[in-house]
Amino acid sequence: MVDARLEPNRMAPILEPPENSDSLHPEPEVLFDDAPIEATVLAHLEGRSIVTVSDFSRREVIELCRLAAMLEAIEVSRFRPLDGKIVVTAFFEASTRTRTSFESATFRLGGNIISIPEGQVTGVKKGESLSDIGEMFNAYADLVVMRHTDTDAPRQIRQNLRVPLINAGNGTGEHPTQALADWYALLKWRPDLIGPDLPLEKRLHLGILGTPGSMRAVKSFLLMSLLFRGAIRKITVISEMADPFGDDVGREIRKCGIDYHVTNDIQSNLRELDVIYMNSIAFLGDSYKALDARYKLDNNSPLKEDAVILHPLARLDELSTSLDDTRHNLYFSQAHGAVFMRQGLLASVFGRLDRLSEAISIIAA
Amino acid sequence: MVDARLEPNRMAPILEPPENSDSLHPEPEVLFDDAPIEATVLAHLEGRSIVTVSDFSRREVIELCRLAAMLEAIEVSRFRPLDGKIVVTAFFEASTRTRTSFESATFRLGGNIISIPEGQVTGVKKGESLSDIGEMFNAYADLVVMRHTDTDAPRQIRQNLRVPLINAGNGTGEHPTQALADWYALLKWRPDLIGPDLPLEKRLHLGILGTPGSMRAVKSFLLMSLLFRGAIRKITVISEMADPFGDDVGREIRKCGIDYHVTNDIQSNLRELDVIYMNSIAFLGDSYKALDARYKLDNNSPLKEDAVILHPLARLDELSTSLDDTRHNLYFSQAHGAVFMRQGLLASVFGRLDRLSEAISIIAA
Amino acid sequence: MVDARLEPNRMAPILEPPENSDSLHPEPEVLFDDAPIEATVLAHLEGRSIVTVSDFSRREVIELCRLAAMLEAIEVSRFRPLDGKIVVTAFFEASTRTRTSFESATFRLGGNIISIPEGQVTGVKKGESLSDIGEMFNAYADLVVMRHTDTDAPRQIRQNLRVPLINAGNGTGEHPTQALADWYALLKWRPDLIGPDLPLEKRLHLGILGTPGSMRAVKSFLLMSLLFRGAIRKITVISEMADPFGDDVGREIRKCGIDYHVTNDIQSNLRELDVIYMNSIAFLGDSYKALDARYKLDNNSPLKEDAVILHPLARLDELSTSLDDTRHNLYFSQAHGAVFMRQGLLASVFGRLDRLSEAISIIAA
Repeated sequence: MVDARLEPNRMAPILEPPENSDSLHPEPEVLFDDAPIEATVLAHLEGRSIVTVSDFSRREVIELCRLAAMLEAIEVSRFRPLDGKIVVTAFFEASTRTRTSFESATFRLGGNIISIPEGQVTGVKKGESLSDIGEMFNAYADLVVMRHTDTDAPRQIRQNLRVPLINAGNGTGEHPTQALADWYALLKWRPDLIGPDLPLEKRLHLGILGTPGSMRAVKSFLLMSLLFRGAIRKITVISEMADPFGDDVGREIRKCGIDYHVTNDIQSNLRELDVIYMNSIAFLGDSYKALDARYKLDNNSPLKEDAVILHPLARLDELSTSLDDTRHNLYFSQAHGAVFMRQGLLASVFGRLDRLSEAISIIAA
Repeated sequence: MVDARLEPNRMAPILEPPENSDSLHPEPEVLFDDAPIEATVLAHLEGRSIVTVSDFSRREVIELCRLAAMLEAIEVSRFRPLDGKIVVTAFFEASTRTRTSFESATFRLGGNIISIPEGQVTGVKKGESLSDIGEMFNAYADLVVMRHTDTDAPRQIRQNLRVPLINAGNGTGEHPTQALADWYALLKWRPDLIGPDLPLEKRLHLGILGTPGSMRAVKSFLLMSLLFRGAIRKITVISEMADPFGDDVGREIRKCGIDYHVTNDIQSNLRELDVIYMNSIAFLGDSYKALDARYKLDNNSPLKEDAVILHPLARLDELSTSLDDTRHNLYFSQAHGAVFMRQGLLASVFGRLDRLSEAISIIAA
Repeated sequence: MVDARLEPNRMAPILEPPENSDSLHPEPEVLFDDAPIEATVLAHLEGRSIVTVSDFSRREVIELCRLAAMLEAIEVSRFRPLDGKIVVTAFFEASTRTRTSFESATFRLGGNIISIPEGQVTGVKKGESLSDIGEMFNAYADLVVMRHTDTDAPRQIRQNLRVPLINAGNGTGEHPTQALADWYALLKWRPDLIGPDLPLEKRLHLGILGTPGSMRAVKSFLLMSLLFRGAIRKITVISEMADPFGDDVGREIRKCGIDYHVTNDIQSNLRELDVIYMNSIAFLGDSYKALDARYKLDNNSPLKEDAVILHPLARLDELSTSLDDTRHNLYFSQAHGAVFMRQGLLASVFGRLDRLSEAISIIAA
């Protein structure tokens, strides 16, 4: 696979896009029509664990998004690239949405799933350590997807785990595959954001409704946005908290020299934003809390005409369904694309992109 | 598949029937030996959702029963007709029996399962709407099997769901695939019931021990029985409730002009019945209740010599195990056949009957 | 398969052994390098249920260990010997470790899993009998793996179950597949233990930290050890209980004439032992209890230089992680090997060893 590039085989069947009223569903083809995928970039992911956004380079994120686009456009399940592979989905914090997304991605690629929907009912209840659980998984699985209430959980399980780990959310830590899905939605919507240094008038004003320091999806989105700093004019964080960043996020954002602004005033800032990222749920200690509950959006909110909204879902009432049938709704596309993004990531980490060569031609670089 | 008919390929291996003492296990062959299946009838099910018994025509029920009989008689798993397809079993009300029945049916046909055994532990707990969950499933699955405590749940999830839904029980609503299994057992036992207009002495006197208005399996059985009115002489409902029907069932039963009778006296009616349908469990509000608990059957009950008992199971003490080894026991055959019926339904809704052509020859109509 | 013998096909890929610091990971090759497996011995397991250790002969245990060794050394998943087969993992007592071990073993052989991680949420909650559940499984599955808090559960479910049952732990009863994994680890470590009558100086002094009468894993290990009496010099049971055996274990151990000794003094006995078997958790009534909690091992414990420790895991603090990186640690190898042992058992019970003939040559006896 070294020095190879991928492009779709036009003989393969094209999947139907969803037909969803007026919501935005940008076509995936825009991300790969003009150039083949650089397989050599993705080859570096083979065998790697994904714990934080910092495990990705900008090039890797872009090529993963372009691979996801191919997988969204082309039916590949009959090639079974993960044939014989077993993925454990170990959810010590329950999340049907994320768990089933990974399980669906694995099945679409022909792999098998050992599902642990509620890890707390296991040996953990009896007091077993994550490190011992990691040792156990070595014999049972080829890759582990884990969600946990404890921010330190990925480090603990990796003390003995020798197969790759994908972090699907750790306490107030990160949720890096959600950030991949977020940016996949943005790049389908605006493929020009891939460009390393956009003219100022084309750059985005990103708005974040929420508190990155205690909302891991928000934090990972923000950290991945820093990889695309050449496409961003400004970041505005609207939060009830005076210091909505944790130490590490604050340091990263200052280090990269991006223009950012923190406020608790939603009214005077909302109409300036090109992208609004929101999440209802913050992780506090051992449980969820609806943070920043004052900040709600509906179809009367003063949004810029072509502003788009991202939300990792599930939502409560902070995001009104009255926005579902509008051109601001990019969150359904974001949710829909997540499963293809996870397919691309799994195929890359398993080093099985070559098994797709009947559907996606491999081009020598 | 249009204008095609199916008959079994005699080279295919025949499954062993269960050997269960004296209980009734009618052979499935009686349902397809004399004529091929009308594939054009089943082709109308492709892509359809199944929410109530009224989603079926009489012809569809008959051809589904005959297809189930073929699938019970012939081993088809190696043809993998659902290869590459993903079924979500979303049980917001737990039911191992029904869930595993659908999962087994899917695996026997080569499909994959995403299992949500206890939907209440998911985003729902955080307040997510069924409509949002439906939108999520579009990306993850090709078909959804759902059970829910809320009678209105199928309508809610279908607001955004674009893949077919099979209702596996909704509150006090319906359980249409259970009714298919019920009638499959009856038709194997008495294939002549397929005839549209039986002579009076061959028609059945159906007895129902229970309250259709709050027992969804009983309700669906009763509604499907109305499709076979030409095979029924009379329906007697034995219930503690003065009006055991809900509004809609009462209207349907009166509209079809069938002779029916409501009583709370089991002793004087039991010996008249050809078929006794019972269920121990009624759904009341948010929980189960053992209704009509006075009505119990055992091997001392005054049953007609050739009367048969149906019960959707699980049972409590209303149906004594002393009846298991008698010729009245059709309920084990009913339970055994359910998985083949669900196979037939899944293959039809997925439009994949043609993949069985090596086992079941397709005959042009 | 009758009169056939198996040996590995050297063309098949060899699996990488785990690289785990100083812990013991004996190579599986030692168990099959000198002689082919006697397939005729394993053929007797086809279609059989495994409820207690007494369901195995000594020859069957040895050949299962040798088959497990081949499966550990050679990648066989692409041959899918369990293709089309469905295994139900019915855990009426939750255990992620054992459940996922069986599920992984089934997937590695190409079978499907219907997973019931917490059986108590099902019809059982409504009062359904195990005998009715067994009848249900006949239609859904080809083999049932069950764990249950009730020691009598295997007998109850088998009243109607006609497919094979593998007991994965029943109350204070047995855990026979754990004993297979235990002895598989011991035979890899000391292949000479297979010999029927070792010279005294080569025989093992087995030490058991725990109470076989209320610890099913300990009991099954002890009962299987009696099959290898020619390799054992003495058994010492170190327990807080005056009579740590139940009636049946006591009778068996006396009947076989092995030298055994019961004590509550760990200090003066530990340095004599060649093998130490321990388990933290005893099953008392309906729940677990940490029994014999005074008996803890760490890297300061006075162990014989080449003594090895076995533990079925999960562990609490009775087995210190300070022992993990020592040559006493055979428990990681024991855990790692369990999944291959279960593969071998499943392939044998399903009578599908012939499907492995591309990887493992079948030699006529």
